[in-house]
Amino acid sequence: MFFASDNWAGAHPNIVAGLSAAAGGFATAYGDSALDQAVYQRFNEIFEREVAVFFVATGTAANSLSLTTFSKPGGISFAHRESHVIEDECGAPEYFSGGARLHAVDGALGKIDAHNLERTIGRFAPEIVHWGRPMAVSITQSTEVGTIYGLNEIETIAAIAKRHSVPLHMDGARFANALVALDTTPAEMTWKRGVDILSFGGTKNGCWCAEAIVLFDLDRAKELAFLRKRAAQLFSKSRFVAAQFEAYFKDGQWLDTARHANTMAARLAAAIEDSAHAKLAWLPQANEVFAVIKKTEAAKLQAAGAAFYDWHKPHGFDGHIGEDELLYRFVTSFATSAEEVDRFGQLIAG
Amino acid sequence: MFFASDNWAGAHPNIVAGLSAAAGGFATAYGDSALDQAVYQRFNEIFEREVAVFFVATGTAANSLSLTTFSKPGGISFAHRESHVIEDECGAPEYFSGGARLHAVDGALGKIDAHNLERTIGRFAPEIVHWGRPMAVSITQSTEVGTIYGLNEIETIAAIAKRHSVPLHMDGARFANALVALDTTPAEMTWKRGVDILSFGGTKNGCWCAEAIVLFDLDRAKELAFLRKRAAQLFSKSRFVAAQFEAYFKDGQWLDTARHANTMAARLAAAIEDSAHAKLAWLPQANEVFAVIKKTEAAKLQAAGAAFYDWHKPHGFDGHIGEDELLYRFVTSFATSAEEVDRFGQLIAG
Amino acid sequence: MFFASDNWAGAHPNIVAGLSAAAGGFATAYGDSALDQAVYQRFNEIFEREVAVFFVATGTAANSLSLTTFSKPGGISFAHRESHVIEDECGAPEYFSGGARLHAVDGALGKIDAHNLERTIGRFAPEIVHWGRPMAVSITQSTEVGTIYGLNEIETIAAIAKRHSVPLHMDGARFANALVALDTTPAEMTWKRGVDILSFGGTKNGCWCAEAIVLFDLDRAKELAFLRKRAAQLFSKSRFVAAQFEAYFKDGQWLDTARHANTMAARLAAAIEDSAHAKLAWLPQANEVFAVIKKTEAAKLQAAGAAFYDWHKPHGFDGHIGEDELLYRFVTSFATSAEEVDRFGQLIAG
Amino acid sequence: MFFASDNWAGAHPNIVAGLSAAAGGFATAYGDSALDQAVYQRFNEIFEREVAVFFVATGTAANSLSLTTFSKPGGISFAHRESHVIEDECGAPEYFSGGARLHAVDGALGKIDAHNLERTIGRFAPEIVHWGRPMAVSITQSTEVGTIYGLNEIETIAAIAKRHSVPLHMDGARFANALVALDTTPAEMTWKRGVDILSFGGTKNGCWCAEAIVLFDLDRAKELAFLRKRAAQLFSKSRFVAAQFEAYFKDGQWLDTARHANTMAARLAAAIEDSAHAKLAWLPQANEVFAVIKKTEAAKLQAAGAAFYDWHKPHGFDGHIGEDELLYRFVTSFATSAEEVDRFGQLIAG
Repeated sequence: MFFASDNWAGAHPNIVAGLSAAAGGFATAYGDSALDQAVYQRFNEIFEREVAVFFVATGTAANSLSLTTFSKPGGISFAHRESHVIEDECGAPEYFSGGARLHAVDGALGKIDAHNLERTIGRFAPEIVHWGRPMAVSITQSTEVGTIYGLNEIETIAAIAKRHSVPLHMDGARFANALVALDTTPAEMTWKRGVDILSFGGTKNGCWCAEAIVLFDLDRAKELAFLRKRAAQLFSKSRFVAAQFEAYFKDGQWLDTARHANTMAARLAAAIEDSAHAKLAWLPQANEVFAVIKKTEAAKLQAAGAAFYDWHKPHGFDGHIGEDELLYRFVTSFATSAEEVDRFGQLIAG
Repeated sequence: MFFASDNWAGAHPNIVAGLSAAAGGFATAYGDSALDQAVYQRFNEIFEREVAVFFVATGTAANSLSLTTFSKPGGISFAHRESHVIEDECGAPEYFSGGARLHAVDGALGKIDAHNLERTIGRFAPEIVHWGRPMAVSITQSTEVGTIYGLNEIETIAAIAKRHSVPLHMDGARFANALVALDTTPAEMTWKRGVDILSFGGTKNGCWCAEAIVLFDLDRAKELAFLRKRAAQLFSKSRFVAAQFEAYFKDGQWLDTARHANTMAARLAAAIEDSAHAKLAWLPQANEVFAVIKKTEAAKLQAAGAAFYDWHKPHGFDGHIGEDELLYRFVTSFATSAEEVDRFGQLIAG
Repeated sequence: MFFASDNWAGAHPNIVAGLSAAAGGFATAYGDSALDQAVYQRFNEIFEREVAVFFVATGTAANSLSLTTFSKPGGISFAHRESHVIEDECGAPEYFSGGARLHAVDGALGKIDAHNLERTIGRFAPEIVHWGRPMAVSITQSTEVGTIYGLNEIETIAAIAKRHSVPLHMDGARFANALVALDTTPAEMTWKRGVDILSFGGTKNGCWCAEAIVLFDLDRAKELAFLRKRAAQLFSKSRFVAAQFEAYFKDGQWLDTARHANTMAARLAAAIEDSAHAKLAWLPQANEVFAVIKKTEAAKLQAAGAAFYDWHKPHGFDGHIGEDELLYRFVTSFATSAEEVDRFGQLIAG
Repeated sequence: MFFASDNWAGAHPNIVAGLSAAAGGFATAYGDSALDQAVYQRFNEIFEREVAVFFVATGTAANSLSLTTFSKPGGISFAHRESHVIEDECGAPEYFSGGARLHAVDGALGKIDAHNLERTIGRFAPEIVHWGRPMAVSITQSTEVGTIYGLNEIETIAAIAKRHSVPLHMDGARFANALVALDTTPAEMTWKRGVDILSFGGTKNGCWCAEAIVLFDLDRAKELAFLRKRAAQLFSKSRFVAAQFEAYFKDGQWLDTARHANTMAARLAAAIEDSAHAKLAWLPQANEVFAVIKKTEAAKLQAAGAAFYDWHKPHGFDGHIGEDELLYRFVTSFATSAEEVDRFGQLIAG
């Protein structure tokens, strides 16, 4: 009953097999091998157009370098107040960009509110050096609290970004979970709606270590190559990432594992809804479930072997949390089994 | 006959097996799993004392964060003119440290000359803000040109660093190759001779992606934890590195693969010495061989399937390179076979 | 009727005279001249203890270097949402510190609310690298909207900072205006209440260009010397700043000019209060007056020669601003005359 | 007999008078006043074309921001080994640019040797991320050792820079001294010979604090405006710099003071040539004189009231320096009198 995080899981057997299969032989280093090239081509197919792909070591690197790609002196990026770039990356986006600021924008349940964004970004006057100036907008899909931007919502936010002449970045650490939940295509969820650069995560969805920046603005590819190397994010044996992505995409495995994780989240949510001891905080849309539970009850669950963390109340959550209660987060993954979820359901039912 | 680089090889079967074995089950993320902890303990044993270990994604990251650990405003690190930190990292050490300078020091065949170091570092007066001030000394073991610092040479350089109140960093991207060549212990080659921080590389010696910073100055461990995270070098599924290192150290495999690579280099050097078409540029001490070859001859070898690069003439090389010749580098690894070397030997003999 | 900013004024005649008097002769550069030394001593006297003084070129430099003095990886400084460091310095504090974040804290009328600060800073857990960690608290005295922290309020905020092991910085671009308004001493308003580092501004109060960092934590003085030089803020002919400060402090001139500016602000506020066309937004405590005025009326005043800017509504202002009105800011200085104020009073009365 | 540095002098009376004259009245801040605008126009006239002018606080700021204007990831600037940017700015150029490297190029007597430059810059292959890539060339006119690039030499270096697609920066801390020595025009010595950006110094030539970046590539002006503000180099009361430059340019005063300084240097050199106790190290071309003197003799001169520093032996100096001798630097300025020089001449003659 490991619901603490989707990165507590190891690697999916198919990923392991792919990695093992690629281990032998010699190949050019630093992302130029035939396998690397084939995987870049695979990304083109998946996104239905030419894209520039840059493997990096971590999601934090993907996000930080994505924003740095569009960096400028006095630059300010706009992201949700509870976004990963603001809350969980130790200031890496600011560090990588030499100090470009992240400006928190509010919105209910992990999603930037378009009106807030417009009002916030609209306050800046790009010619007044004192204030700094807009540099990028960043959204997370799916969000930190398991919600999802609809395609039209992405389009709306992209339109605001464009109106203010800044690019739209998508933090897709859980890209696949959103994709299958929306039942759409990678192209539709990104560049067709105005996304300019994407952090494409494979790690949380069954890889060991497979993160990529997908850049739609090809003119910036050459610079990003230097940015990545300078940031110590260019793997020598790059094919070890390529091999993971090859297996990840093969026969739609990435969609299967994401679907499985989402299904497990829904199953968990149903168990919580049925429980007398817990209230579902809001409806999960991807692979994260949030519930309000009595602290004593949560402690019992944890004592019985369930791993999960309490979470701070997100902006826009208007449910009641009693003095003796807390909000808790449960994350499912490719490795979550229905048996585990059901066992948890029995515990919480009780 | 792939002698282009030791990172053209994939992963050693034992590393692959170790990684596969660790893929199942759930474990805490970000370096706190039981496996991570066990590997940290293994480092303590190998270095015969408590050390602080930080896994990172690349050798460039290990070097850059090592130097940044000792960063200060106006800081200047001293490294060999042809060192990796100066020549091959796209300015990452300067970038990570917010602009701390790398100052080139000369010395024959890849090794800092102690007199040059003393003279160079001695020019600075730490209280004069205009000039900046010494911050670290960095040596590479084994060097970029396949030579090795003797233990007494390390001690001499460490003494100079200490006299000027700066730490000594060792870039150990090919640490194991030097270790077995000197037939010494990790402790003797590092902290017992005055090394304060070490980039410990596993990737070139058979891992997929296993690099670590080994910090002997434990007081700085807390800061380095933040430095690493801020630099986007903290893996979520950190156990994928731990599993590699576990297999790497098991039954002395790392020493075996390093020994093999060095042996193959010696075999290759012998073949070159015997050849009428090539001159050994200097004696290899680790897993890199340098030879002066006619361009036309080199082209023939490449056409016959041998992969290797030409190299710029290092400081202190006083051999003759004719107009129609170039200096070439040959690198061996765990994956180099005696058959390959012999096949190359036959080609070059001819 | 120039109420646009206190830096629209030139230099006070005494400052000009002091500067002229120091122009002849030779003196050591870079802050070591006898005049520089004498002025440092003067700062010691004024602050009733030994302080380390660093002249810099701008208030932005003073603030940015002050915060950078306490910089650490993942560091976060807490400042009022409408503070100068956040709103008006083009990201300089983040840039100078290599990306350390500024976290906005709310509070009414330009002052950090202590409860908000405690709650905000208390959310961080210094050992969790992902979140970053507190690095400093910064307050502005007097604030951007002409209000003043009482001595006990400074003490309360300093206590919160200390409890969380971070220093307290004071942006004193308008230090003298607050000082005379509170009728207290520099020591009482700073280190005796827990301030660790101060941006001491002379420019807005009659100097040409006289800004200093006053550091109470002397252990950090050596590092700040390097930080300043590296930041290109060490003047060669440093005595041109020293000469200004010498004249500034002589016979309490700095207190006289500040008192004059505050008196003119009060006079202006009274005129506004008497006017049928304007409402005082809140009581001015230093040299800035804010009023709600009909846009058409403001345009008339401007057409008649009054210079002033509209201002965004600060947090905690609960007065009414009609559709046809705006909030406007009026700043007085050493150069503001009673005649000007009265002329404006007549215009607005009518 | 103050020959220690040209920044030991104060300000020229005409500069003081100009500054005093501009002290009264109100004017818009941050470089937008009528006086600022008039001075920008003056720069256009002086350079015989439209230029973008940015006042900054120090020569270090001018140099660092000039290079940062052309910054790129992995960027490397080429400057003479003994240039101010490398030796005397505490790493500010690297810091401002987020780590862009300065690469030392050798050449005799403070001037980059064109062949060395070509060979050094030619080693880089702009598409190989590991090596970094050329970003700028920087020359100093007049140099740190009082020599001057001829117009054709500037042109040659500019051509190399252009061939490698990088801009040419000129550090003109002593621009006027070189200008009058060459008897040429500002346009001829800069953009007409291929200079793209210039650090234009007034401080060493009689101002208190008047440094400007003169940018010939107008497309980059908007970015530099943000760079300057973010670097805390935008003065609020900018007219205090404008007033100095106004007086500086008036009736060719800047040329007069530079000519005077150069003449004094020549007079000093003649006195040294005549002396039995000192040897002129090389012929001075601007306002710096270098001589080899016995240490005991130098000590006597200093005891008699002469202020000057010893200097390290520059690259390309092939004169003899005995065991009991040192190389010493003597700098003249607008404030150096013929009497002083002659008094020194008598001392050294004797």
